[in-house]
This record gives sequence, C-alpha cells and structure tokens, in this order.
Amino acid sequence: MSSARPASGASRPNEYQIPKTMKAWVLDDPEQLRLVDKPVPEPGAAEVLVRIDAIAVCATDIEIIKHGLPAIVDGGSPFNRNFTPGHEYMGTVVKLGPSVDEFRLGDRIAVEVHAGCGRCQRCREGMYTSCLNYGYHAKGHRANGFSTDGGFAEYAVNSVNTMVHVPDDMPDAEATLIVTAGTAMYGLDVMGGIIAGEGVVVVGPGPIGLMGVGVAKALGAQPVILTGTRERRLEMGKRLGADAVVDVTKEDAVAAVQRLTGGKGVQYALECSGAPNALNEAARMVNRGGRVCLAAFPADPVPVDLAYIVRNNIYVFGIRGEGKSATHRAAALMAQKRFDAKLIHTHTFPLAEVPTAIRYARDRVEDAIKVVVTMRQS
Amino acid sequence: MSSARPASGASRPNEYQIPKTMKAWVLDDPEQLRLVDKPVPEPGAAEVLVRIDAIAVCATDIEIIKHGLPAIVDGGSPFNRNFTPGHEYMGTVVKLGPSVDEFRLGDRIAVEVHAGCGRCQRCREGMYTSCLNYGYHAKGHRANGFSTDGGFAEYAVNSVNTMVHVPDDMPDAEATLIVTAGTAMYGLDVMGGIIAGEGVVVVGPGPIGLMGVGVAKALGAQPVILTGTRERRLEMGKRLGADAVVDVTKEDAVAAVQRLTGGKGVQYALECSGAPNALNEAARMVNRGGRVCLAAFPADPVPVDLAYIVRNNIYVFGIRGEGKSATHRAAALMAQKRFDAKLIHTHTFPLAEVPTAIRYARDRVEDAIKVVVTMRQS
Amino acid sequence: MSSARPASGASRPNEYQIPKTMKAWVLDDPEQLRLVDKPVPEPGAAEVLVRIDAIAVCATDIEIIKHGLPAIVDGGSPFNRNFTPGHEYMGTVVKLGPSVDEFRLGDRIAVEVHAGCGRCQRCREGMYTSCLNYGYHAKGHRANGFSTDGGFAEYAVNSVNTMVHVPDDMPDAEATLIVTAGTAMYGLDVMGGIIAGEGVVVVGPGPIGLMGVGVAKALGAQPVILTGTRERRLEMGKRLGADAVVDVTKEDAVAAVQRLTGGKGVQYALECSGAPNALNEAARMVNRGGRVCLAAFPADPVPVDLAYIVRNNIYVFGIRGEGKSATHRAAALMAQKRFDAKLIHTHTFPLAEVPTAIRYARDRVEDAIKVVVTMRQS
Amino acid sequence: MSSARPASGASRPNEYQIPKTMKAWVLDDPEQLRLVDKPVPEPGAAEVLVRIDAIAVCATDIEIIKHGLPAIVDGGSPFNRNFTPGHEYMGTVVKLGPSVDEFRLGDRIAVEVHAGCGRCQRCREGMYTSCLNYGYHAKGHRANGFSTDGGFAEYAVNSVNTMVHVPDDMPDAEATLIVTAGTAMYGLDVMGGIIAGEGVVVVGPGPIGLMGVGVAKALGAQPVILTGTRERRLEMGKRLGADAVVDVTKEDAVAAVQRLTGGKGVQYALECSGAPNALNEAARMVNRGGRVCLAAFPADPVPVDLAYIVRNNIYVFGIRGEGKSATHRAAALMAQKRFDAKLIHTHTFPLAEVPTAIRYARDRVEDAIKVVVTMRQS
Repeated sequence: MSSARPASGASRPNEYQIPKTMKAWVLDDPEQLRLVDKPVPEPGAAEVLVRIDAIAVCATDIEIIKHGLPAIVDGGSPFNRNFTPGHEYMGTVVKLGPSVDEFRLGDRIAVEVHAGCGRCQRCREGMYTSCLNYGYHAKGHRANGFSTDGGFAEYAVNSVNTMVHVPDDMPDAEATLIVTAGTAMYGLDVMGGIIAGEGVVVVGPGPIGLMGVGVAKALGAQPVILTGTRERRLEMGKRLGADAVVDVTKEDAVAAVQRLTGGKGVQYALECSGAPNALNEAARMVNRGGRVCLAAFPADPVPVDLAYIVRNNIYVFGIRGEGKSATHRAAALMAQKRFDAKLIHTHTFPLAEVPTAIRYARDRVEDAIKVVVTMRQS
Repeated sequence: MSSARPASGASRPNEYQIPKTMKAWVLDDPEQLRLVDKPVPEPGAAEVLVRIDAIAVCATDIEIIKHGLPAIVDGGSPFNRNFTPGHEYMGTVVKLGPSVDEFRLGDRIAVEVHAGCGRCQRCREGMYTSCLNYGYHAKGHRANGFSTDGGFAEYAVNSVNTMVHVPDDMPDAEATLIVTAGTAMYGLDVMGGIIAGEGVVVVGPGPIGLMGVGVAKALGAQPVILTGTRERRLEMGKRLGADAVVDVTKEDAVAAVQRLTGGKGVQYALECSGAPNALNEAARMVNRGGRVCLAAFPADPVPVDLAYIVRNNIYVFGIRGEGKSATHRAAALMAQKRFDAKLIHTHTFPLAEVPTAIRYARDRVEDAIKVVVTMRQS
Repeated sequence: MSSARPASGASRPNEYQIPKTMKAWVLDDPEQLRLVDKPVPEPGAAEVLVRIDAIAVCATDIEIIKHGLPAIVDGGSPFNRNFTPGHEYMGTVVKLGPSVDEFRLGDRIAVEVHAGCGRCQRCREGMYTSCLNYGYHAKGHRANGFSTDGGFAEYAVNSVNTMVHVPDDMPDAEATLIVTAGTAMYGLDVMGGIIAGEGVVVVGPGPIGLMGVGVAKALGAQPVILTGTRERRLEMGKRLGADAVVDVTKEDAVAAVQRLTGGKGVQYALECSGAPNALNEAARMVNRGGRVCLAAFPADPVPVDLAYIVRNNIYVFGIRGEGKSATHRAAALMAQKRFDAKLIHTHTFPLAEVPTAIRYARDRVEDAIKVVVTMRQS
Repeated sequence: MSSARPASGASRPNEYQIPKTMKAWVLDDPEQLRLVDKPVPEPGAAEVLVRIDAIAVCATDIEIIKHGLPAIVDGGSPFNRNFTPGHEYMGTVVKLGPSVDEFRLGDRIAVEVHAGCGRCQRCREGMYTSCLNYGYHAKGHRANGFSTDGGFAEYAVNSVNTMVHVPDDMPDAEATLIVTAGTAMYGLDVMGGIIAGEGVVVVGPGPIGLMGVGVAKALGAQPVILTGTRERRLEMGKRLGADAVVDVTKEDAVAAVQRLTGGKGVQYALECSGAPNALNEAARMVNRGGRVCLAAFPADPVPVDLAYIVRNNIYVFGIRGEGKSATHRAAALMAQKRFDAKLIHTHTFPLAEVPTAIRYARDRVEDAIKVVVTMRQS
C-alpha cells in the first residue's frame, strides 16, 4: 500500500510525498463496499489532507452502509456515488490547504464529524451540528463520512474546524475513540455540564455509554450508575469509573436507581441504548426538574408518557453528533489520562478487511465493542 | 357575604377588619364541591392574607376536582380533607404576616402557584416549581390550590413569594389571567426567551396558548403562528397578535407551518393542546436544532418519533406551572398593555355559583374559554 | 455618479448592470479622506455585492479615521492603504457570489459589522465578534469598514452572514440605524436578555443609548431610566419610551436612580457614555447581583471601585460590536415599529459630502446625533 | 470544656446531651475578641445545631474583626453586640430543628456561608449569595459569622441550606477547607464552568487561589497556570496540579502567560490576589472574548483600562462567597480525592488560642497559609 511519508527521516517533516491515488472503500448498492483506487483529494482553504492512521467502526456507519441516511452526498443518496464512509478516524497531517496555520505537517490529529456551513443561523449561534445547510457541500457544510467522503481510505480532507491534536503518547487506536467520548461529553454539556457531585445514570453500555461513564466520572459526577444487559460491558463500566452498575436482566432499572440513590433519583440521565422504553425509564430515574439526553433512539415511534415528563418538569435533549467542541474537551480528558478509553477497543483489522471489521461490530462477534481498523503495524 | 373592609374610608387603609370565618368551597368526594364556613386563615412569616376579589377556572382545577392529582394535601389525597381548590386568583392584601414589608395593606395582587420550600436543591438553584419537597407544607412548600388551600373562597393566605402587584387600571377579572400569561411566558423563557424576530408556533388555542400568542408577539417574535380547530379561538389569536392562524381541520398543521415559513420552519414551538400527535408535529414545525416546550400533555402514553428528535437535535422542555418569576414578567407586559388578555375572558359568575362556573369551563358551554368568578359587582 | 440599475424596469430585476469602477472615499493620512475611483469589488463565495443606498456616521468611524485602530487591514494600519471606512450602511443586493441563495437580486438589506473566520474557538462557539483571527482576511474574517473596505462608497461586498432584510416600508436612512439598535440589543442580550418587568438604566443618550432605550422598552423593561447631560437628547429618550430621564447636570445620577426605584436600584445598566466614573456609578445603580454592560469606554484607564463590584456580586460585560445576531432581532423590532429609530436621525448629506457629514457628527454641529449619507434623492 | 456527646456510646447516637451554655469568642471593640460563656442557641425550622469540631481562619474574618463590614448583625455594626465571628467551620449535627430530615444526628458536616432569605428576587432566581435582604435576620437571611453568629465557639446554628456532608475518612481540619474550595469552584462556575481542555490562569496563591488550582485541574482545565510572588506557595500550587507557575518577582505575569500559551492566552482568569493591577493584567492574559472572575479586590479604587476590556469583549464577574451550591461540588471533588486540600493547612490551634490563630493568619507568621482551630485532640 502506498503511503505519504516524510520527505526526510526527520520526525517533523517539511513535506510529505503524496501519491496521486489511494486505496479507498466505496459504497455501491446497500451493504456493498468495494476497495478501489481513487484520487487523493486536495485540501482547500481552511482544510488539510490527513493520512489516515486508524479508524473505528461506529454503529452509524453500519446504518449508512445499509440504509443510506443520514449520509447525504450533495443532496442525494450515498449509494453508487463513489462515496467513502467512515468518520471515527485519526491520522497525520500531510498537507496544508491555503491559509492554514492551526496545524503543522506531521501533527497527529483526531477528528469530529461536523464542519458547519458557518453562514446559517445555527452555525452563527455555535450549534454547527444542527447546520441548516446540512449536506450542501457548496455552502461549506461537511460531515465526514456522512455528506462528504470519510475515512475508510488512506487519505481524507478535513476542515481545521473538525480536528483536535493527539498527544504523542496516545496510541492510534485509542485516538479513534476521542470522537466517541466527545459525543458523550456533548450529551453531558447540553444537560448543563456542571456535574461534579451530581448523580448521573448512563443507560446502555455501548461505546458512547461507556465513554459517558468515563467522562462523567472524570468531571466528578457522583454517583455514576450504568445500566445494561451484558455483564462484561457492565464490568467494563466499573473499570471506567461507574460507582454502581445495574444488570437490567436481573433488576428493574428504575427501581435500582431509586434504591441506589435513597429514593432521590439523579439529576441527569444519558440515554445511549435506543431501547423502546428507555425515555420513560430515564424520566423516572431523574428527580423533579431533572434532565435526560437522548444520544440513541429506537428506529420506530414508541409510546412515551409525556404527562410524566410535563408534570415533573423534565427537559429532554436530542443530540446529533458531538457539538460545541466537545471533542476538544474529551481529547483533553483522555490526554490527561482521566479514564482508560482503550478498554472498549476489542478488535483490530487492517484496511483491507474493512467488511470484516464492520461485520464484527454489527454482529457483536466475540462480544466486540469497538472495532478499529489500523493502517500501520504497531 | 362578609368581607374585609378598610377600617376607614381611605383608599389605603391602615387596617382591615377581618371576620373570623369565611365562605369557602371544599372538596368532598370527587367532583363534589360544597360551600362551607371555614376559619379565615392566619398569615405566617413571609405571608399575607389576601381577600380574594376574582378567580378564574383552570383546566387543572377540573382535573384536581375529578382525579385528585397533582393536589397533595400534606402528602395525601385532597378528597374529604376540607380542601379548597382554585389557584388563578387575585385580590387585596388585608393583613400582613410577621416581617412582611414587600406589600402594604390595600395592595392589589395576583398570584402564581408555587412557593418552593427554599431548602432543596431545585429551590436553591431557582427552579422552585420543581421543588423536591412538593406537598410538604411543614418544609415550607406551598402550591396554592394544589397542596394548600386555594382561592374558591373569600380569603387565602399567600407567600410573598407568589404575589405580584396589579396596577390600579387593570380590572379584577383581567388580573386573574396574569398567571395564565405567566405560564406561557415561562414556556418561552425555558426555550431561551430571546425571541425577537424568531418564528414561534403555538399549538392549541386554549387559554395558555392564546396568552402565548400575546406574550410571544409582545416580545417581538415573528412570525407567530397559531394552530387549532376552532375558528372563533383562532380569530381571537389573530386579535392577540398572531401573524397567521392555521385551522387544522382544513390543512395539515406541519404543511401549513412549512408553507408559511418558506419551508424553513420556526425556531420554537409552544405545545398547549395535549393532542396525541402534537409533539411529533411540533418537532416537524421547528428547524434543525429547534426547541419545543410542552405546556400540555395527553393523559396516556402516545407514540413519539424519538429518532426524528435525536437526528434533528431537538430539545423538548416539559414545564410545570410558571417558574422563574415568569408571572412577574407577564404582569409587566399586561400592565404595559402589550396585549389584550381580557379577550379570552368569556363568562363571569359569583362565588355562590362556582360549580356552574366549573361546568361552563369543563364543557366549554357557549364556547367558554376563560370563566371568571368575581366577588364584587363591578 | 454611475449606479447599478435593474436591467429591466421590473421592481425585482433579473440582473443589474454593474459598472467597472465606483466612487469611494479612501483614507490617506489620519483624517485625510479622498474621493477616488476604485474598481467595484467582486463577491466571493457566501458573499454579495451591495449597492450602498445610505450610510450613517458612527463615532468609531471618526476614531478610525483619526487613530487607525481598531481598523486592521490585513494585519496592518488602515492609513494610505486605499482603505474605505464606514460600517453603518444599507443598500440593495445587485450581484450574488457563488452558492448564495439566502438573498435575491433587488433585496434591500442592512448590515452588521462582523463576519467571523468561522474556524477559531470563538467563532465555533457563536462569539464571532470576538473572532481570534480578527483582521486576517485570508482566514475569512471580515469587519466591514474596520478590517475590510466599508461603505463610504457606491458599492461594497458583504458576507451573507452580516446582512439582514429591510422591509419595503422602512426608509433607507432609518435602515442604517439597525446596526446601532443591534449593538444596544446585544448589550441587553449579554446581560441575560429576559428583561420584561425588570429595571434598566441606560447611561448616556448617544445613538446606542437612545436605541437602547427603544429596545429595552420594546422588550417590556420597566422602568427604563435614561441619564445624560443634554436636555434635547433626554427628551428624545422620552419619546423613545424612557419611563424617566435624569439630567445629571442637575441631580446625582445614582441618587436619582435610587429615588426613582424606591431605593431598590435596577437589575441592569447599559453604559453608553464612556464617562470616567460611569462604571462606578452604574455599579451603584444596580442592585446586589446586578449586571452592567459597557458599550462605551473612556480612552484612558480610570479609577474603578472593584471592592464594590466584588462585594455586591456584580457582573460587568464589555461588548464589541453587535454579536449573537442581535442585528436581526433589532431589525425585527424596528420592522414591527416597536420604537421610532428615525428620531435620532438629525442630518443628511450626499456621498460627495462625507467629510462634512463626519464633521457634523464629530463636532455635534447643530446638536447632531445621527448623521446619514444617502445616495439617492428621496 | 463541656461538649455535646452521644447519649450512648453508639457511633450514631439517638440523642446528644446539649449543655445550656458554651464557650464562644465575641467581638467587643475592633480587634478585641473575648472568650465568654454564651447560651447554646436553639435550632429553628430548617435548622440544626452543630457542634463545631474545627474552624479555619479566613482573611475576611480578619477584616470583620478589624473593620466590621460586611458583617451586619440585624442591620447594624458587629462591634459590642456579643457577636461571634468565624465562618469556615465544620462539625457534627447534634440537634435537629423542626421538620429537618435532610440530616441526622451525628452527621459530620461542613458549611457554606449564605442562607438567603428565599423570598427576594435574587433568592428566587438561585442567586442567594446576592440576597437583597442581606443582614435581615427576621426575613430569613443568614450569613454565618457575618450577619449571624459564627463558628469561633463550641456550637452554632445552621440552616440545612448551608450544610454539606463530610465523608468519614476526611479529617476535621481538611473539611474546613471545603468552603474555600467552594469559593474557587463558584468562581469557575460563573465564568461558564465547562473548562476541560481550556486554559485557566489563577492569579495569587492564597487559599482561594490554591484551591482554584486544585478545582480547575480536577475539572480537566489545561493548562492551569498559577502566578504569585512566594516560591513556597507556587510550589504548593504545583503539587495541587498547576501545569506551570510564574514567579512575578522574576517575570512579567502577562508575558509569562503569553509565553506559556504560545501567544494565545487563556480562556479564563481567576483573580485571587487583590493586587491593584490584577484586573488589567488578567484582561491581557485571556484571549478576545475571555472571562475574568474577581474573587479578591484592592481596598481602594484602582486604575482600570476599560477600553481594553470593551474592545476585547471581556466579561468580568465579581463574586461574593460561594453561591450556586458550589460548596457541594467542591466537597464532592474533595471526597473523591481529586486534589489534596490538606496541603494548604499549615498551622493548628485550640479554641482557647483563637487570637493567636488569627495573628498567625493575618501576619503570615511562619508563612502560614491556612490556620485551623480544632476542638478535639486528634
């Protein structure tokens, strides 16, 4: 496989030799990925070219590959458009677009997904993940691996907006988890973000939920309670700092939270399960005036007890992605080693085996949690 | 009927002669109200005695009288406890409790419902309508007509917390609507409150919805769109300032809002209908990153499309009552005559006819919107 | 003078004929303006070309013309760089840059000053007036008439970010005041923005202060008190809605505010005078926990009683420009005719007489408040 | 010395035997403290009696003892009123007032200073440290050791509002530092509170500053820079987590911060020095749009460069005390051992030697930082 290399042997090169073409997976029909040779893209203003060093598989990638949405490539379907999916990647800056001085050649970076258009009302108010020009590349919007080419490839172009520095001592695979932790961080932020000493329930020990435990505990939340069905993942939650875990196959989740909090409930619930009754349960885990963030959702409409939500003055925050620069905050906590994100990384594959990596993640083969594709032997 | 009167003929008396007993309606079995003689209550610290001059009937009163909840009288049911319901009242300060200097004898006041305990976490953070000691009178919580005696009576005790001055030129009946406007104001506040030039849809032209139109327009929202089924109420919405109204018996509400906003949707939706599909529709009326406030709710769980809410980064705020001193802000706008709240006042009855007043409100007799009980001929 | 005109006589033209060159004032040495022929600029992505129809003179223009700062043209001084000052302008969209669909040819617009770079931390959090790349045009930052060419000319290029629609029935000269009202609005916003029924003191009846009175009153503040030294301007404040005015040549400003508020003070003070003791006085006009916004400042350091500010838990907000889309909110209130901004427009000159217009504004000739340069006879 | 003891030997007693009188220091003339026998006070509603186990000396105590203000005992001077100062105490709950179930006999607690009246506008909005009824005990306001008797005594009454649980494994002396850490936490909170990965400068390594370092670092701030003049205290800052310290006797503080941040400055500055030029320097340490919290202040007015503050859109937050329940958050971080507050505890004295303790703190005898009076040998 060709790869950008420093022009000299120096650790901080002056220039990288960039090949004309690269290996990249593209999406043909639903669930049909094909490895092709594609031109290496050229960074524009406020962009850089990233040599991808590692990329994790996200449940949303699997959705896009199967159903298309919400990946909109210039307003249309992602199928048979030569579109490369994948958004949880990290890599090395190998070329700078015009005007870029925020990064240098050789910088290791991880990415967040959304570069807003910068010109709509939401972007102007700082809510760039809710960009009103979503999918309009010509207006400046980019969502890596959603509306523009992503990271199951050797290279990708990124806006300087969507990148965060990775410290030298953080392994490639761990750095792919920054964006996952960033989503959890964003969920806590939108609920208020000042959570030291406050109770937080994380519902669902998927990758975002487990990172949510790590982030909440790093910020001093107390107690942090994790609920789920799989013992191994709950155990992982404990290692990430959960004060208590609840196996909902053995105990009613709401009753357990009430038991663990002396009947008071918690202030915040971060729902990461997408289970049909999760919002109703989360509403009953928080106290009056409490807040619930939905970072996951069931595919179809589900019965919700709105009367309970209104009578108890509960606020419910749907979140998309990892806005308000939460990725930067998550990266900072990980750089400071406040929690061990690596714990959720269970499997590793090379670029050539992306379909296998996706299968492992999708089918939870060998109880896979986070499956990472790495470009380099390490 | 006996009544407190100034000891002298002065407009601002030094003292009121307070009778020992008063007429008051009490709740026996569900839907059984009885007019009794009751001791006139004594104001404690930070409280005053209010001579009630007018009280409006709220849909929640009807719920309490029928189902009990959420009226909790010292932790129990409101039935057969000598409990007096009613919370949308105004009147005259006729006696001051110890330490009170915020009000003077003879002041005309309107009330909000909630006096928090002042000692729980929510009260300490200013969210007194979500008081964690709801219903615990001994801990200082009071919710007029919910957890403590209300206003279908000649007198009531009120915390100085829950009162707002009524200007001389505002009629008694109009002043009973301050708390309704306060609820609408609170709904707009929790969604951000800075709404000049922003689009707001009000769903449901009940009293809160109609006041929501008035308040939103007073604060400069543009456009303010009101949706509903009754032509007369929609017409009233126009007179309160709605830029457009949508008769949902003739046009799909979501399609109409998209049409009226050039496909952009609005920033805020204030849901006041309690219709089963209202949240799903409201979510599709706001744009990406938009906010929905639920001031009403269906009695039973309803199907909600959470996927839409999450994918569009929508925040949903359940509200109970009229917190954050919204009643003060509503009173100020009404005192400044920014909208004509009186429009929604449709029927008037004397204290002796409270059951009839309630029936008019409950059954919408003669298309009643706001039914007011007044104590004085005027 | 040449001017863009519709290609046809239609009110909404399909195309404007744009000349190659235009008349524009450029800044040579300090205070030396010269009228030259300059190329009409070309709008880039997310930009339009605006035919300027009117422009008001701001005190900051006078500062820039005399001292240079804070106008930074690509990192340097504005002198002898062919730089055209002026930022309070409005006009007609006559050409669209690539990808623009937010505006159409023939739209009347007013402008705000700041288009942030969209890539720094502040822009990403919605604080684009505090762009960390201020003055770096290559990184996307634009501040009309500060870091890029402004409006004392026939045409100017604007980012779609910095424009707001002007309704048909608003005269050109009035529309130039939108940005002034936007600054006042921003000042109220940063202090919390939910001001109905709250007391606001506006210190200093200059253009921003007078617009502050109009905006505060439009949002329901009560009382709104204006302090100043010039009777005519205080009188104008009354016509814009001030509940009370204080002539500080006759009464101590703090004492007056305490008198007018029954010793309670107000919640918010908007300082627009730049007087040396204004912050100390404003701090004593607000109550404990109150907020002060500084929209003006003395040139040199002044003694400030920080002990008073800390002991009374006062927050002080310096603001630059009119961020958070406040201009849109101000425009909405003006379009709804909530206050009569035209009152502060006192003098009018043609483009050829810009130096005279500036002299009138600087020296307050004939008690000038707002001096407007208009391009068309009307 | 008499002392409340459990009626039985059980670790969690059912009852404490409370003596009628206690030893307490009272303030006669300025700087004249006298040890007297005083009645043990009786807890009212929502109050408990605390047996004081330890109390730290705060610089404000020294101010009160010397100058009186801001200690206002029922509206008057604290001198010769039998007033007991001291507010940084912790102890054991030995008697419950009516309605109290938030605490149990035997609970170890630390205190915050302010119990707002609960009825003024500020208290209703959650800003109880800015209570508009400050010093009016009859209206419910209490500020321990300021407006009501404090903790240089064997017992004190406390509102349940102002208490936080102390874990078993936290020594008495350490628990007296919770309120100091709470003040630092409040300062970070008012500036936004979401500081992971953001730069923070703490100006002045006094007790609040040093706790500010610990709290900021615990919340993930990066870098945390401490500036000061005393090498030993700067060294202590490093042990509390500072990423860098600046000895301002050797290097210009602003230049050092710019050097340490690559010329970018930080987002937040917490000023704890009270130095005359500290605000001007802090304003130049933060970047455009940055925030400064003043937790200390010079006694007299000082020259402040307001032009710099306005031009750079800087917000300045004066804080009094430790509002918004910051003490609870600080206690949680300390309970989780996120930083070692004990480091700043340098000297210990018994109750009989309070004047000596105060002298050590005031004159920094033996470089004293935090001087603690403990009631029990341990």
